[in-house]
Order: sequence, then C-alpha cells, then structure tokens
Amino acid sequence: MSSQSLSKFVRFSANYNLCCYVKSHLEFSPFLRLSGESKNFSISQNMSSQKVLNLDNMNPNVRIMEYAVRGPLLIRATEIENELKKGVEKPFKEVLKANIGDCHAMGQKPITFIRQVLALVSQPELLDDSRYPDDIKERARAILEGCRGGSVGSYTDSPGIEIIRKHVAQYIERRDGIPCDYLNVLLCAGASDGIKSILRLLVADIDGKKPGVLIPIPQYPLYSATLAEFNMKQIGYYLDENKNWGLDLNELERSITEARKHCNPRAIVVINPGNPTGQVLTRENVEDVIKFAYKEKLFLLADEVYQDNVYAEGSKFYSFKKVLTELGSPYSEMELASFMSCSKGFMGECGLRGGYTEVINLDPDVKAMLLKSISAMLCPTVLGQAVMDCVVNPPQPGELSYESFQEEKASVLKSLAERAKLVADTFNSIPGMSCNPVQGAMYAFPQITLPKRAIEEAKNKGIEPNAFYAFQLLEKTGICIVPGSGFGQVNGTYHFRTTILPQPDKLRNMLDSFKNFHLQFLEEWK
Amino acid sequence: MSSQSLSKFVRFSANYNLCCYVKSHLEFSPFLRLSGESKNFSISQNMSSQKVLNLDNMNPNVRIMEYAVRGPLLIRATEIENELKKGVEKPFKEVLKANIGDCHAMGQKPITFIRQVLALVSQPELLDDSRYPDDIKERARAILEGCRGGSVGSYTDSPGIEIIRKHVAQYIERRDGIPCDYLNVLLCAGASDGIKSILRLLVADIDGKKPGVLIPIPQYPLYSATLAEFNMKQIGYYLDENKNWGLDLNELERSITEARKHCNPRAIVVINPGNPTGQVLTRENVEDVIKFAYKEKLFLLADEVYQDNVYAEGSKFYSFKKVLTELGSPYSEMELASFMSCSKGFMGECGLRGGYTEVINLDPDVKAMLLKSISAMLCPTVLGQAVMDCVVNPPQPGELSYESFQEEKASVLKSLAERAKLVADTFNSIPGMSCNPVQGAMYAFPQITLPKRAIEEAKNKGIEPNAFYAFQLLEKTGICIVPGSGFGQVNGTYHFRTTILPQPDKLRNMLDSFKNFHLQFLEEWK
Repeated sequence: MSSQSLSKFVRFSANYNLCCYVKSHLEFSPFLRLSGESKNFSISQNMSSQKVLNLDNMNPNVRIMEYAVRGPLLIRATEIENELKKGVEKPFKEVLKANIGDCHAMGQKPITFIRQVLALVSQPELLDDSRYPDDIKERARAILEGCRGGSVGSYTDSPGIEIIRKHVAQYIERRDGIPCDYLNVLLCAGASDGIKSILRLLVADIDGKKPGVLIPIPQYPLYSATLAEFNMKQIGYYLDENKNWGLDLNELERSITEARKHCNPRAIVVINPGNPTGQVLTRENVEDVIKFAYKEKLFLLADEVYQDNVYAEGSKFYSFKKVLTELGSPYSEMELASFMSCSKGFMGECGLRGGYTEVINLDPDVKAMLLKSISAMLCPTVLGQAVMDCVVNPPQPGELSYESFQEEKASVLKSLAERAKLVADTFNSIPGMSCNPVQGAMYAFPQITLPKRAIEEAKNKGIEPNAFYAFQLLEKTGICIVPGSGFGQVNGTYHFRTTILPQPDKLRNMLDSFKNFHLQFLEEWK
Repeated sequence: MSSQSLSKFVRFSANYNLCCYVKSHLEFSPFLRLSGESKNFSISQNMSSQKVLNLDNMNPNVRIMEYAVRGPLLIRATEIENELKKGVEKPFKEVLKANIGDCHAMGQKPITFIRQVLALVSQPELLDDSRYPDDIKERARAILEGCRGGSVGSYTDSPGIEIIRKHVAQYIERRDGIPCDYLNVLLCAGASDGIKSILRLLVADIDGKKPGVLIPIPQYPLYSATLAEFNMKQIGYYLDENKNWGLDLNELERSITEARKHCNPRAIVVINPGNPTGQVLTRENVEDVIKFAYKEKLFLLADEVYQDNVYAEGSKFYSFKKVLTELGSPYSEMELASFMSCSKGFMGECGLRGGYTEVINLDPDVKAMLLKSISAMLCPTVLGQAVMDCVVNPPQPGELSYESFQEEKASVLKSLAERAKLVADTFNSIPGMSCNPVQGAMYAFPQITLPKRAIEEAKNKGIEPNAFYAFQLLEKTGICIVPGSGFGQVNGTYHFRTTILPQPDKLRNMLDSFKNFHLQFLEEWK
C-alpha cells in the first residue's frame, strides 16, 4: 500500500471510529498477538477516557481477539464499493469479495427445494397451493408438526426439533455406515455456534495451568478468535505445505511437547476438508491424528463443514467418527465432536445459520452440562433448523423434486470442481506463486514470493508484508483476499486465501487481473 | 412432590443421563448458587471418570450456571407429555407449558404480514404472484436488495443489513422523538444474543477485583446464567413487591454498598416492562435509576423487549434512552445499551431469533471492539433480521396490508391485556396467594403462603419449597410453571412465575384447575 493510500485508509477509519481497531490490525500480526502473553492481566484504573467503559477497563480478551476474515481489508473494500457508487474513478468497475466463503453473494443460486420448504413453513397457507410438489409439502408438514403450536415462531428444545435431529442421525448413518443416536445430535445456528459450545466446556485451569487447544496453522480464524475470547492457549501445529497441507505426526509431537511447558493441552481441532488450505485428509492421516489424540488424552473436534466439497480425483472424505469407530477399541471409545453447517456444501445458505454438532462418547454428566449450557440461549433459529433438515433429508428417487434437486446439486458441485482446478492451475502458472491443488472446501491458499524491497517497505510501515500486498491488490484491481498472516503461516513465508466462489466468467477475469497485478507488483518492487 | 414421584423423577433423569443436572437443580437454590464463592478455583486433577472431559475438569462456570426457565420441571413436563402419548393415565389430558413466554406454542397466530414477507424473501419467485399485496412485495424487495447477491442465504455485515438498521433507527426516532443513528443499531439473533455481547465487554478484573453487575431480583435467568458463565459477580437488588415491584433507591444503595466490598460494580440491568414481575416502571422510577447509575459510574443495560406489552390503565412505557436524553447533561451523555426482540410484543416470533441492540454514547474504541467481537460469529440469521424489519417497518395507513395488520396486532394485544387482568384477579381470589397487577410483559409472579408442614417436607427432601409446590402442581394438573427461586426472591418468601399466554378458554380452565390444586394442597399440608 502506498503511504498515500494507507493514510487515506486510516482517515477513512477515523471517520468510522474504527481507527484503533484498524491500526491494531495493520500494526500487529494477528497470529502473533493471539499467542501473546498479555491476556490474563488485572488492569489498573488508568482511564483513557471519561467513559464508564473504555479500552483500558474493557474485557482484555475481546480487545486482543482478531477475526481476519472480516478485518480492515473488508472495511476498505466496502468503502471502495461506496466510492464506486459515488462515481469515484477506479481502475476497475466492481469490488470482488473473494475474502469469505459466501456462495450466494458470489452469484450461486439457492437450491429450489430448500427455498420452497422454507416458504411453506414460513407461510403454511401455501400448503394448499397446488404448484408445490407433494414431497416438498410432506417435508414442510413434518417440520411444522415438530414445532409447538405448529409454528416456526415457537421456541424449540434447545438442541433442536426432534424429527430434524432424527433426520440428521439417519444422514450420518448413511454417510458412515455406523449407528447414530439422535440424542447425540445438537442443532445449532451455524457450525461456529456449535464449535463455541464445545470449546466453552473445556475452559478450566488445572493445577494452575491454562487449558490449551491444538489447532492447525494455517487455521480458520474462528478458532483463534474463540480461544482468545475464552482465554485459552492456542497451540499451533503447522500443516505441511510440501505434503499438500497434510498433518505430520512429528509436528504434532513438537507442538504438544512445547505447549506442555506452559499450558495444559485439552483438545485438538482438525479441519477436513481444510480451510483455508483446501486439502482433503487421507484415511491414514485421520488415523494418525486419532491415535495421537488418544495417546495425549485430547478431546477431538472435527470441523467437517466441507464434507460435500471434495473435488480432486482420488480424494475422499472420511469422517473422524467413521475412522475412529472402525479402528476399534480403545479408539472407538474416544470423545469426539463433529460439526456440520448448511453454509457450505452445495447449498451455501450462509445467512440462514443452520448447523449441527454430533457428540459421541461424552461423559453423561458433561453432556448434561452441555445441554444446560445451550439452554440459556433458548434455541437455534427454527428456519436454520429447517434448512439443515433439507440438507440431511433431500428428495429421494421416485419423489417429484428428486431430479431437479439432483441436477441443481450436481451442477453446483461440478462447477466448483472446475473452478478449484482453474484457480490452482492459474496461480501455479504465475511466476513467484505456488499453489497446492484445491482438493476440497472452497479456498486456495497460494504461497507468494515477495520481492525484498516490498517486504522492507511493508515492515517500515508496520504492516505484515502479505497485508501490504493484499491492500495493493485491492486498491488496484478491486479484488479482496485475506492475507495469510490472518490464518497463520510459517515465519518468513507469505500467502493469501482466496475463495473459488466467483462465477466462472468473473473468476476468469479475476484471475487475469490478479496475474497482471502480480507481474506489475514484481516489476515495481524488484 | 411425594417421595414416590421424586424418585420416579430422578429415575427418569438417570435414563436420560441428566441425573446430576437435575439433582443439582433440586438440591440447590439456583439463586444462592450463583452468588456462591466456588467459581474461580483451579481444579486439581482428580478425575471422576476415565473420560478426557468430565465434571471435575470441565469449565466450572458452566457447571455452576443455572437456567431455571428450562430446568428440571420442563424436563419432567416433556416426559409427562410422552407418557400421555403412550396412554398412561393422568388426572389431566394435556401438559400446559406456562413456564416460558412462547406465544405461538400457546396458540397465538403469527401476524400474516410478517409471514408473507418471510415467504417472499425465502422464495423470491413469489414476487411475481399476484396474490401478494404490493406493500408486502416492496418490503421483501427492499430486504433482498440489502442482501449480497439478492439472497437471504448470503452473510450480511455482522451488525446486520444496512436498510434494516435504518428502519430500526426510524422506529426508535418515532417512539422517542429523539434522533437515532443507525450505526448505533446492531441486529442480533434475539435479545439474548445482544445482551451477552454487551455483558462480554464488561468482563475485566480491575485492581484484582471481579466485575459485578446489578440485576433486579426477581430477574430473568438469562442474566444470572450469563454472569455465571462469564465469572462476573451478580449483585442483586430486590424489587419492592409492596410497591408493585418498583425499584427502590435505598435498596439500590444497599446492594451496591455491600457489593463494593468484594467486587467492582460495572453495570446495572433494568428489565422494563418487568420479567418475571410484570410491572411497568414510572418515568420517575426510570429517572431515579439513571441518576443512581450516573452517580455510581455504571453502564446502563435496558432490557426493553416488552415495550409493546403495556396493558394497565395509567401505565406507559418510557424508554431509558428517552428519559436519559430528556434529563439533559450530564445524564444525556451516559452509556446505554437497550435491547429489543421479535419474540415478544404482538408478534411473538420466538423461534425466528430476531432482535436489536441500540448503543449510545459508547467510547468509539469500545464500539469498534464490540463490532469486532460480533464479527467472529459472522452475522445474525437473515430471516430473523427480516422479521425485525417487519416489526419496525409495519404497513402504513393507505397501504394495502395496513388494516389487516392493525387488526391482527390490536387483537393480540387486547386479548393479552384481558388475560393479564384475569390472571392477577384470579390469583388474588385464592386464599394464600397474592399477585401484583400485571401492568405489562407476559407474566404474573404471585406470592404463595405455603403451609409449614409442606416447607419442612420440601427441606427434608432437599428441595426448594416452591419447587416442591411446582412439581406437585405439574404431576396433579399438568400445569408447568417456574418456581420463584429460579428468579430469586426475598428469603423466606415463595413465588412462582406463570405466563398469561394460554388462549382465553385454556387459561380459564388452567386457573380453575390451579385454584383447586392449591386448595387441596393447603388441605393436605395444613
């Protein structure tokens, strides 16, 4: 970012009273900050403002937490959108938000089946409308029968509507070929909600040591943000970029051994298929993690929200539950929480906030506490629950909506697979970039070799070099990505995350424009 | 509860692995537990089970928190429902859940306007359907234009869709006659979500002292549960039952003076109209609280979710923002968060999880941190946001849906007002019961004089006497209420909360059956 655009950026931020937030984003690596030591202090009364609540006396964990996917780049991107609306001249016509896995925002069409069910449960008079196929009506009726007073406006049980939990259990059974008890299924408002509910249980100082959680680096920033909020220690284990972002046992051993010196490791998070890294773990790799977690007495959290997003030939999704169960005792008795969402897959219903957590082998007392802890938030949104029902209980062969549903689903997944390949291939064709194949999920996480002068310039400005690169890209092309430092990366390497979600034509234009920018950038800073 | 039904109850619970949870509910007063001292300990490794995560090493704050509205009585009520389905003989035909403010579950019909808008935004093809009035279509179009890619399936900005925030701001301006900046409005997934976001900011030990929050007693258990989860101190101030549950300044002074010895009071919560107590504060009372909060440097949290539910003659809702602003400087510069929900009022859309928080006079840095802290949860459910839009932007005179909307709204509120009076009058006609008028909200909180023998019997069993009463009521009549101890009450007094929500005929039957039970109970334990 030129110093001109940086100062413009800070000026903008000040207008929105976000200056301090933005500055902290620009000046510190979120990843470094999150593993910092300044989280557990008792603040002394040194008021920075006359306000009752100010930066000096507010929750220090909230102050420190970062959420890179929605950081200052996105704020600047939104500002540029407003400038464009006002007619400000730019070298591009629109901002392309490749920063977040937001399918419909990028032009993906909602699945008709899902939206028809939503309309029917929202306005049950439509059940008399002959234009809706019977299988859609049946599903809507089943959901409404599960609602008190027959209305989606009633509270449900905190873990969700019984019939939907049962449908989820059947879905999991079909997927894994292993029994699933619906009482182990808790619906939630998106996977983030479920993940936080489980991590919350693990917050406990033991023998004076803080709890720690192993998370992959690069990671999805929900984890670092939640660990910061809960004042838990983040134990990063690096994924191996040279082995297609696979998990390496030696690295797991290294990270836990170091961590045990200063905290108490309680759990391990695995994201499969990977976010931001797009890998799909082999069965062998999943087995390794399970055995490691068993040996180290770790609670397993399997973030499996991209289970439908597997593209690469030879890649296959193996759920942690399936592998753990098939390994037999003692592994099959391990505690596991697995998370699923209606925001990803082929449906991409991010805004509707549906998801589920399956827990297995929990201590019954702990499970009771989990149920209690979610009860104060009453229940996850009923329409989000309804979407989850559509995902796990889709039209079956012979039903009226079956063919159109299958067609829409297959078309989304096929196009995503093509885009996954296009993105990785293109980045690999650009000098100074290398990108692992996008086997699954919705992201590429290429490595970029930045010119020394650019790195120095960024450091002089107190900005992460990959954030410097990303701001320049945004200002010059309108493409909004997330710097690798927001997810964590090996020191001295630079990456970015982009989604593969822009529709094919837009994606091709974006990649062209990205390539031109990159070559110019290399030229400018060589 | 007879010892037979108690043991049956515990047996049932064990079946559901909830024994420990239920026992802790039965054996301890939630209110006492929450202000207990056992929250901040470092656990030693004394595993109660072979599990990685067990009661001894889990989050002690979660273990201690209670949420009375969804406690063991509700679990037992659900079990009884299942018994009824299986044909088990009972002295009643159905369970009446008067434990929770769940309007549609109790037979209240959804507002047509709201559900039509929901159907249109869920399935935008319906915008071509001539059966929908134009004003409904306009509203749906405006919401969809605010959604990225024109889909409610996209993420919105974390504080919500801009146009809806603007509509909320206009609604607040109309209500108070005072300007409202939409940037101060944050949409949330029900008021509970907003309340937790604000309380979270206040979690900070200062000079080694824990933060404390003043909450009314009786209170809505979301507050005690959240304070327990956040390891904040609950500072109860008793509402004055003899002055129609008004706030008494001397009591506020007493509670804060005592609290300052062991914690650092940071904020005060006021619930107006009151839950569970049903009072509507006078303007004078609101002024008193504001002045008290100013003097004591407290952040104000105004839980105003029942602002549309004011029934009693002479009662009027005054928002904290209006009163504080009209008091002028220095009060008009005080920090305030006010909460609203689409779950209550005339709409009662509990399951759709819509709400908003308005913050005023926040330190800009703190506001930036608030915005950051909600960003990790991405966004509140878009359909919940859409419902909130309907509430704050209803049909206007001259629009096609205006009359039917007004009719439906007025009919709900009129019936609630009648039921509010019926409930209080009936309880006051029963020997050994007294009930303040239900001026607003959706609850009555009568005091009951329990026979000494019943109190002794309950204590022998280790149960709160009002829980003993409530379990008996449930087993004998199918009526599910919440014991007063779940909300807090003056020591040695006994209460319960019931909603006024059953439809008129059912409510009359319920009150008859309640009266008969009570007279029998007095006779049995005299």
